[in-house]
Amino acid sequence: MTDLDQDPFERSCCPVANVLDVFGDKWTLLVVRDLILGKSRFGEFSESAEAIPTNILADRLKRLEQGGIVTKTPYCRKPMRYQYELTEKGRDLLPVLEAMVAWAEKHVPGTKVFPRYVRPADGGDRNRIE
Amino acid sequence: MTDLDQDPFERSCCPVANVLDVFGDKWTLLVVRDLILGKSRFGEFSESAEAIPTNILADRLKRLEQGGIVTKTPYCRKPMRYQYELTEKGRDLLPVLEAMVAWAEKHVPGTKVFPRYVRPADGGDRNRIE
Repeated sequence: MTDLDQDPFERSCCPVANVLDVFGDKWTLLVVRDLILGKSRFGEFSESAEAIPTNILADRLKRLEQGGIVTKTPYCRKPMRYQYELTEKGRDLLPVLEAMVAWAEKHVPGTKVFPRYVRPADGGDRNRIE
Repeated sequence: MTDLDQDPFERSCCPVANVLDVFGDKWTLLVVRDLILGKSRFGEFSESAEAIPTNILADRLKRLEQGGIVTKTPYCRKPMRYQYELTEKGRDLLPVLEAMVAWAEKHVPGTKVFPRYVRPADGGDRNRIE
């Protein structure tokens, strides 16, 4: 993914094309969905129902960070691990996801919205920094 | 693309995943955009600014038809040529595109909405079928 601020027009100045340059694949918006649903850690994203391959997940998180959609902060030093959070730019994707949900609920029989994710009480926040 | 009605859950029952199973690439929603903007013919889609390769365009139109997003009708018999039109299921994607446009207008500097397409007066409707 290019940094949108540095190279805004990979294919054209059309806003739809610019969105698809970043999110036009089968995985990136699923990571954004997970973040909106409350997930923040690599292991949590990889446990989602769609079983995103870990190499693709790592790539998409890196691209989302480069594009200013997410920020990462360390929550563990040994081993070094990060948690991810949507920026305002990322949170502003919510209406895009909501429109997709509305379309699928109308046109894909049996589709259902995933519940909000709540991290288990013992969920790996040992070694938290400070 | 699978026919959504026959195989609705390629990856999960999540509505976002189901939308991405159909539209999760860099091209399919651009064809839907062109249809919403008034284009209907193969040559018109292929002239869009993003320069979609013709083999990809043919594939995406076929998939959109299989998925019930577009219908095609012949407008010329020699050679046989078709024009495409969004179904209700296809037109219902407008809010998804509108949400993408709003996001890009806020977060991608310089992005601008393409004008509605008007076919030239001599635009190839000779040999029209009745």
